[in-house]
Amino acid sequence: MEHEVADLPSGPLDVYRKKASFNWKDMLRFIDGDEILAFKQHVFKTLENDPLFARQPGEDLPLEKIRELTFLRVKQLFRYDFLTIEEAMANPLKTSILHDCLGMYDVSMSAKSSLNRAMFGQTIAKSGSARHSAFAENIEEMKTFGCFALTELSHGSNTRAMRTTATYDPSTQEFVINSPDFEAAKFWVGNLGKTATHAVVFAQLYTPDQVCHGLHSFIVPIRDPKNLLTLPGVMAGDMGKKLGQNGLDNGFVLFHNVRIPRENLLNKTGDVTPDGCYVTPFKDPNTRFGATLGALSGGRVGITRMALGNLKLALVVAIRFSASRKQFGPKNSEEIPVLEYQLQQWRLIPYLAAAYALEHFTKSIFMNFVEFQMGQMMGNKADIKAEMGKEIHAIGCSSKPLASWAAQRGIQECREACGGHGYLAMNRLGDLRDDNDPNCTYEGDNNVLLQQTSNYLLSRLHAKRRDGVRIESPFHSVDFLDDFHKILGTKFSATTMEECMDSAVPLAAYKWLVCFLLEESQNRLQQQRASGKDEFEASNNSQVYYCRSLAITYIEHDCLQRFHEQTMDPDTPASLRPVLRKLCALYGLWSLSNHMTTLYQGNYLSGRKPAEFVQMAVLTLCSQLKDDAVALVDVLAPTDFILNSPIGNADGQLYKNLWSTVMQGSQVLERPAWWKEFCSDKPVVGSLRPKL
Amino acid sequence: MEHEVADLPSGPLDVYRKKASFNWKDMLRFIDGDEILAFKQHVFKTLENDPLFARQPGEDLPLEKIRELTFLRVKQLFRYDFLTIEEAMANPLKTSILHDCLGMYDVSMSAKSSLNRAMFGQTIAKSGSARHSAFAENIEEMKTFGCFALTELSHGSNTRAMRTTATYDPSTQEFVINSPDFEAAKFWVGNLGKTATHAVVFAQLYTPDQVCHGLHSFIVPIRDPKNLLTLPGVMAGDMGKKLGQNGLDNGFVLFHNVRIPRENLLNKTGDVTPDGCYVTPFKDPNTRFGATLGALSGGRVGITRMALGNLKLALVVAIRFSASRKQFGPKNSEEIPVLEYQLQQWRLIPYLAAAYALEHFTKSIFMNFVEFQMGQMMGNKADIKAEMGKEIHAIGCSSKPLASWAAQRGIQECREACGGHGYLAMNRLGDLRDDNDPNCTYEGDNNVLLQQTSNYLLSRLHAKRRDGVRIESPFHSVDFLDDFHKILGTKFSATTMEECMDSAVPLAAYKWLVCFLLEESQNRLQQQRASGKDEFEASNNSQVYYCRSLAITYIEHDCLQRFHEQTMDPDTPASLRPVLRKLCALYGLWSLSNHMTTLYQGNYLSGRKPAEFVQMAVLTLCSQLKDDAVALVDVLAPTDFILNSPIGNADGQLYKNLWSTVMQGSQVLERPAWWKEFCSDKPVVGSLRPKL
Repeated sequence: MEHEVADLPSGPLDVYRKKASFNWKDMLRFIDGDEILAFKQHVFKTLENDPLFARQPGEDLPLEKIRELTFLRVKQLFRYDFLTIEEAMANPLKTSILHDCLGMYDVSMSAKSSLNRAMFGQTIAKSGSARHSAFAENIEEMKTFGCFALTELSHGSNTRAMRTTATYDPSTQEFVINSPDFEAAKFWVGNLGKTATHAVVFAQLYTPDQVCHGLHSFIVPIRDPKNLLTLPGVMAGDMGKKLGQNGLDNGFVLFHNVRIPRENLLNKTGDVTPDGCYVTPFKDPNTRFGATLGALSGGRVGITRMALGNLKLALVVAIRFSASRKQFGPKNSEEIPVLEYQLQQWRLIPYLAAAYALEHFTKSIFMNFVEFQMGQMMGNKADIKAEMGKEIHAIGCSSKPLASWAAQRGIQECREACGGHGYLAMNRLGDLRDDNDPNCTYEGDNNVLLQQTSNYLLSRLHAKRRDGVRIESPFHSVDFLDDFHKILGTKFSATTMEECMDSAVPLAAYKWLVCFLLEESQNRLQQQRASGKDEFEASNNSQVYYCRSLAITYIEHDCLQRFHEQTMDPDTPASLRPVLRKLCALYGLWSLSNHMTTLYQGNYLSGRKPAEFVQMAVLTLCSQLKDDAVALVDVLAPTDFILNSPIGNADGQLYKNLWSTVMQGSQVLERPAWWKEFCSDKPVVGSLRPKL
Repeated sequence: MEHEVADLPSGPLDVYRKKASFNWKDMLRFIDGDEILAFKQHVFKTLENDPLFARQPGEDLPLEKIRELTFLRVKQLFRYDFLTIEEAMANPLKTSILHDCLGMYDVSMSAKSSLNRAMFGQTIAKSGSARHSAFAENIEEMKTFGCFALTELSHGSNTRAMRTTATYDPSTQEFVINSPDFEAAKFWVGNLGKTATHAVVFAQLYTPDQVCHGLHSFIVPIRDPKNLLTLPGVMAGDMGKKLGQNGLDNGFVLFHNVRIPRENLLNKTGDVTPDGCYVTPFKDPNTRFGATLGALSGGRVGITRMALGNLKLALVVAIRFSASRKQFGPKNSEEIPVLEYQLQQWRLIPYLAAAYALEHFTKSIFMNFVEFQMGQMMGNKADIKAEMGKEIHAIGCSSKPLASWAAQRGIQECREACGGHGYLAMNRLGDLRDDNDPNCTYEGDNNVLLQQTSNYLLSRLHAKRRDGVRIESPFHSVDFLDDFHKILGTKFSATTMEECMDSAVPLAAYKWLVCFLLEESQNRLQQQRASGKDEFEASNNSQVYYCRSLAITYIEHDCLQRFHEQTMDPDTPASLRPVLRKLCALYGLWSLSNHMTTLYQGNYLSGRKPAEFVQMAVLTLCSQLKDDAVALVDVLAPTDFILNSPIGNADGQLYKNLWSTVMQGSQVLERPAWWKEFCSDKPVVGSLRPKL
């Protein structure tokens, strides 16, 4: 059944829409498919038709009110039940799409919902056992509400250093959960500020013999579900205002010897017998710990997609704005859209190309993750499972930085490209930036995470060199590295600007870059060790310009590689391939521009021409794509209601929409309530100036 | 008289303070001098001691309340009268320092104050005549309150295209001010939202013969000062929430044939006689228009300094945080401050170097601007005045982009470098970023402004080539360009990493860069013209990689040049020169890193070593400066009260300060007011799901 896609309202944007080189509805169907399209439209329309989800662009609500509204909306989502477990199993991509749709409406709302169901619920499902099923069931009907408590006030990245303790007391068969001091308070926990009744708490497990068995997770009741009052010995509260995502109530908790039943230990990786003996199927505590934190890998793949959602919305706003905003022109009498300017194109269109690259990439790695998870459940061979786990970890630890930084920079560029109007809260670019910002931080600081990826790559090189193990991986992101000697012998070969306009050119350069940086990083580490540095210091001293760049180029390569393959795929409709190829080439060349120094350093290119070809190809592609830009964002755009940005509406009536939103604000034309402060009690200049 | 500088409270930061290579009080005295130091301390203490200025970090106030508080504080500033006109004349730098101090407390407050006194007041003083003095006097005592209305809803950058009209009616000797439609509403006007009683309005002047004489400025009454009600025919209102600077009430106004006396025309550049004849001392309307907008040049120099203020505060927070926050370490048992990590150093310390470079640069160009203004008043020779005006325009149009972008990126890096705690509103990094953001936009979009600078440079080259005019300027920022042939023959000459650690190396590279880009830009423009493009198109097609880069490298060079000279100046205390030289070299090398492609393209450097030297020198300098970093931010830091960021307090008691601020928030430990929404009316899963 072909899903009907509605036409967009006509208006000032028609000029561009008519010039587009492709049919935007064909692109929409190609990217989403009919089933997903229908699903998205259903979610969007449902929210729009429910007054609980109504909002005024740029409205000024107190924090408490934002928290309440978000809670009520999450509660309503239970009633809509957009995606049953059966439906999600039948088409796993739908979970990702649902998250997109809800996140495009409000990231806080989708985060609040998924912290309860995915982070709390699935951690229990994965780390617990049959004895914990009631906890998971209770959240399905909102009898209880969950959160995931790992980070502490004084520890984030260094997860192993968490200081909350869980000491087993065999006399009552209970664990005693305790925070040694306020610096060990669990901190930053989403849902904990106001609503969580239960938490998955990570704590150091002590058996009665005073042996510490490392970090384990426990289900700890926090608030009484009957009245939301915190339980005895629990001090939980709200951390207050954040830069963004204020619908989500992040909170803290201090435990004063809180007792929980022995069974509340999530016992997949280790358990304590009633009489206090520790038992585990894992011999190596490091492996056990890795398995405990496995849940975070899926989180990072999800965040990669979330960041893309923010970037898409910002691009829709900025490109529609640029196509309807006119300023200056060849003649004084006639102004032209700012999208016609080379500078504006160069500021925005590469991010549009990045959004298309990431659109394919995020779906592709999500399906890798699903495959990995299925394998876990289906009981694949242990070594394949382990390899998949390592690769998806390396991908997630670098895809999150890739997408969250692209979104952060892209949204800022969109804000600036919309000038003052971009600075008005009602146009949403501020919220998008602020809501995206923590994507750079949670589930691992981007810079710290990149080390996980480079470690993975270096270990592959090491294994090849030491043991002759072929470099390859289940999702093939590293396979090309096995040829690294040969690749290091290649050079930039394009001899004209036109040749560069093919994504094969940046792709080849990226292959060389990753190989070069892999070898350089390895050499740098060796050098550091040789000069007497211990492993800790050698690694720290090899991050900037080496391991960090290695991880970044690895993931940029993988993203470009997958996009390149899509544009070459015979299943990609012929009518769409030309524009996709331009986007792919632009994304590749523009990303590559950040690494020109390395390309020159390693003599992959030399002289004046190559960099000039790359630059001119970027500008030419931007210019070729500017007539497609509006249609390309029409494909990415949700409905106007969801977008919630007057200057970004599909009708392109920039000023009318902006003006009417301003005029419908609160007390716009009234004098201020405090007008008498101006009119009376006039200040005597210098009356409070100290007399000498 | 030597001003006493108080010691800082001891605590975890002492470790670093003791290791500093210089005495921070000496640096403070060197940078500010005793008089400025005493002045700053007086302003800071006065605000701290006045309960009207009390605030809670991260507090959540409604927009209306923020507007009111900011107004009341501005009113109180009249009473404090921190700087009389006589004092400002005696030491002009004090106006800049006062603006720093108030801006560090709250940018909205200082903006609100200076839009009234500087933008409104000084525009009248400069563009009007004796007949307008009452308007200027009335704002001094807050009898009235002013604003500056240029931008319209549909026009910003293209100032000449403003559509508001002022038509002279000789029968009543009045101008009729009219907005042809809502798109010509004055928009984004600071102070107009709530408080302005009068506006300087820019409108197209029409004489009765229906001739348009172009944009002129008029004083237009907006609200009745007795009751703040808008006057007949005036529709003025508040634009609503912005991303930041919400204490400032930006507004809009539509004029419906509002009549004002003939005398309200600010008549410095043109006047209308009672019977309706237009008279002007300027023959060329373009020159007249340029003179009218001259006021904006000082604004841009001021914004450059404002942006630096935001960057400084963010660095104080992030560096003190990094020196007290510990995470991981060589041994599991012992963690080290995150400032010890190469990555963290590389993320933050170059911005610290940039802050020191900009500290000197912003003061230096401010003094240039003062000299220019004095020259205007003292009646310097017309050609010198014009040359000074052009150079200060070229500097302001690029120094604003330089500083506002450095601050924007630096604050974001600081936010990320503080991890989750940086995302908490109470730590102020969000406000700093949001308050800084419009510096990239107002008084000219950064990218658009840079064209003014490159036009200035290209016109110099053109004059030399065509007429053999020597390239030189009153403030010497272009003098080196006269040697451009010789400079283009130079090459990168450092042969070791150590040699690169001298700011002379990046300085020489910058000289080459500016010359190279000047010639390349000129060639690109010629090429475009030769291919048949008109001037408008030729210029648009030469921005990216050419003119834009030219303007950026020009101003980076000038900033580096002035800093370099300071570090070489025998008047700079010998004890401070070593650390200043390191900062200068780091700033130069780090900025230069953004232009390596061009350096390779133009063959200024080649092969592997040069880029590696630069990179290793950056890392080495970061590492050498990390023990000075805390002392360096102590010099830049205001008092804790002004800083208003618990994680950035001078005592370094990061967690104690953060925790106690969290605990003193509003309703932190209470259950939410809407708790019953959780406990009753439980959702029935899927009850609102459409039945198939």
